[in-house]
Amino acid sequence: MRNIFTLIKKSAECRGRLGKINTARGIINTPVFMPVGTQGTVKGVPMEFLKKSKAQIILANSYHLYLRPGTQIIKEAGGIAKFCSWDGPMLTDSGGFQIFSLNAIRKITDNGTQFQSHIDGSMHFFTPEKSIEVQKDIGADIIMCFDECVALPSDIKYVKKSVDLSLAWAKRCKTQFYCDDADERQTLFGIIQGGVYDNLRKESAQKMLDIGFEGYAVGGLSVGESKEDMERILILMDEFLPIDKPRYLMGVGMPEDLWMGVENGIDMFDCVIPTRNGRNGQVFTSLGKINIRNTQYKNDFSPLDPHCDCPTCKHYTKAYLNHLVRAKETLYLVLLSTHNIFFMTNLMQIISQAIAEDRFYSAKEDFFKKYYSNKN
Amino acid sequence: MRNIFTLIKKSAECRGRLGKINTARGIINTPVFMPVGTQGTVKGVPMEFLKKSKAQIILANSYHLYLRPGTQIIKEAGGIAKFCSWDGPMLTDSGGFQIFSLNAIRKITDNGTQFQSHIDGSMHFFTPEKSIEVQKDIGADIIMCFDECVALPSDIKYVKKSVDLSLAWAKRCKTQFYCDDADERQTLFGIIQGGVYDNLRKESAQKMLDIGFEGYAVGGLSVGESKEDMERILILMDEFLPIDKPRYLMGVGMPEDLWMGVENGIDMFDCVIPTRNGRNGQVFTSLGKINIRNTQYKNDFSPLDPHCDCPTCKHYTKAYLNHLVRAKETLYLVLLSTHNIFFMTNLMQIISQAIAEDRFYSAKEDFFKKYYSNKN
Repeated sequence: MRNIFTLIKKSAECRGRLGKINTARGIINTPVFMPVGTQGTVKGVPMEFLKKSKAQIILANSYHLYLRPGTQIIKEAGGIAKFCSWDGPMLTDSGGFQIFSLNAIRKITDNGTQFQSHIDGSMHFFTPEKSIEVQKDIGADIIMCFDECVALPSDIKYVKKSVDLSLAWAKRCKTQFYCDDADERQTLFGIIQGGVYDNLRKESAQKMLDIGFEGYAVGGLSVGESKEDMERILILMDEFLPIDKPRYLMGVGMPEDLWMGVENGIDMFDCVIPTRNGRNGQVFTSLGKINIRNTQYKNDFSPLDPHCDCPTCKHYTKAYLNHLVRAKETLYLVLLSTHNIFFMTNLMQIISQAIAEDRFYSAKEDFFKKYYSNKN
Repeated sequence: MRNIFTLIKKSAECRGRLGKINTARGIINTPVFMPVGTQGTVKGVPMEFLKKSKAQIILANSYHLYLRPGTQIIKEAGGIAKFCSWDGPMLTDSGGFQIFSLNAIRKITDNGTQFQSHIDGSMHFFTPEKSIEVQKDIGADIIMCFDECVALPSDIKYVKKSVDLSLAWAKRCKTQFYCDDADERQTLFGIIQGGVYDNLRKESAQKMLDIGFEGYAVGGLSVGESKEDMERILILMDEFLPIDKPRYLMGVGMPEDLWMGVENGIDMFDCVIPTRNGRNGQVFTSLGKINIRNTQYKNDFSPLDPHCDCPTCKHYTKAYLNHLVRAKETLYLVLLSTHNIFFMTNLMQIISQAIAEDRFYSAKEDFFKKYYSNKN
């Protein structure tokens, strides 16, 4: 095991921190927002635009890539980054979340999970070992332990059982990861579960630390619990997680969650919101969220966001984007998704800068004063 | 009226020629392939990519833009080029072809055409005068006369009546174009009709010349007639059309038609084929047409076309594009359409270069030797 994280600065105001994650494909400055490229493409966003967005690392999904195009093809291509023409670091999840959230699961045993392909209905079986092998073939820089992701609300008995199962699987993942064919360029993260139950979160965190990973994710949040629950658990995690390992809050990415997450010591975030919202015409701007389809934008010849440096804001007006959405022209997917990705990567720069200059809370206040101004 | 065309060179081998069209938004080197942006966007292709493709002029459709977003919005935006963020010349068709080809037509009289919106079923009436006013509001650099586009096969009696109607309308278009509010930056082209009947084509050409336009289009071809018919009519047109006016073959754009069209004196082409084929996974390459969805490309890690300088060929492999098409990921629309546009603009450069160097026929032979080699 090698330490991939360097702590650069602890905030003087909050639990937030600045750091660097050192991967074989480059350095990631944290805190970082990671765009999601489920099937090896951040939906609708050409790599040329992603690179301009200052995105530092992209996610891909093992479940999807395993089913299509298949790990063999990605391995032959030289790994996922080369396959999808991204020359920076990448991260794959274990497939666990997709298997559970897509209701693809057929049977769960101590050994693993049987699931059905959402593409052709074929049956597959993932063990922790299998998930690690799949992720080795896919070849991302950071890979995740295979775990059970419990839907909320779940009763404490079920969550406890699930925490135990995920811990047992985490051990097996680590063993498999460090077996003979380990690729030293890859890094394995553990995932802390436990729902909204403080005791279970503590237990999960402590036992994950006992196993020992190069980074820790907080999983199973942003799945229906309250914002208060999420924040309380992050504060709790900050007490347990070592200062010299990166911390990743999985599947979280609304602007308010990014501020809150960083405030409480999170280094890494991922979320499909920028592209999913883009597909629905919903756009993040420094002056708040807007839906570009609204009639008021039909003859609004200003850019989406006057403070944005993305290709969409540089070249196109709201009126044109409104037209593209109404005409269902493919280009709107490209332009809105690209803008939303830029919004998130720019936001992380704003937050990082605020921590660097010890003005986190005033920067947060400034941001939300504009964000909730509804001037748009 | 002002002359917008400069003849640079007549081929020593064939009827082909090199020229320049001078518009307010820039010079267009001919022969030229014009990508089609029906609704103010070349489907799926960001302007950044279009600019790199050396596309010199883009088409838009008056019928579509009149219905949505409406000409008032485009006028307020400062014209179609500004609206869609294209900083080169543009051309609009009159709406005639769309009204007839979308079966939107309800009633045709000497005065004009009643048609029904394909969007909301609302009724509209285009006269020649109305079409010109719509095109003035849209504000493209080159605009077209409103005419009747007859489907083939049609009997000679119907085509004769239609030629007469289009001639009467062309006169009215010209009168309306040069009335008080004429924008000197715009240029009006006449359209020659007459189906596959040589006498009617001759009559249409002669009478259009009598009316007098700054450019002439050959309309109503590539609508079901044989390649021989198309070529015979182009050869006939070459006899009648003045050497100092640009000639535009409407809606034609397969590689073999581009060679044949240039060979017979055509300067301008437009076609939806690059983007429409892209959406179906069909790709033009120097080694022939391929469908990237085919199984053989699943683990083919070479670019679409080894001789192409487009962003798709520079960055992505056939295996990745095959994956995107199969996974129905939006990005494939962007990447394949972009490549196909580059293929057409690159082909026009190859043809132009061949005329410049008086090796048209040897270049054509070389091109098709590879194109039909099926090495892909």
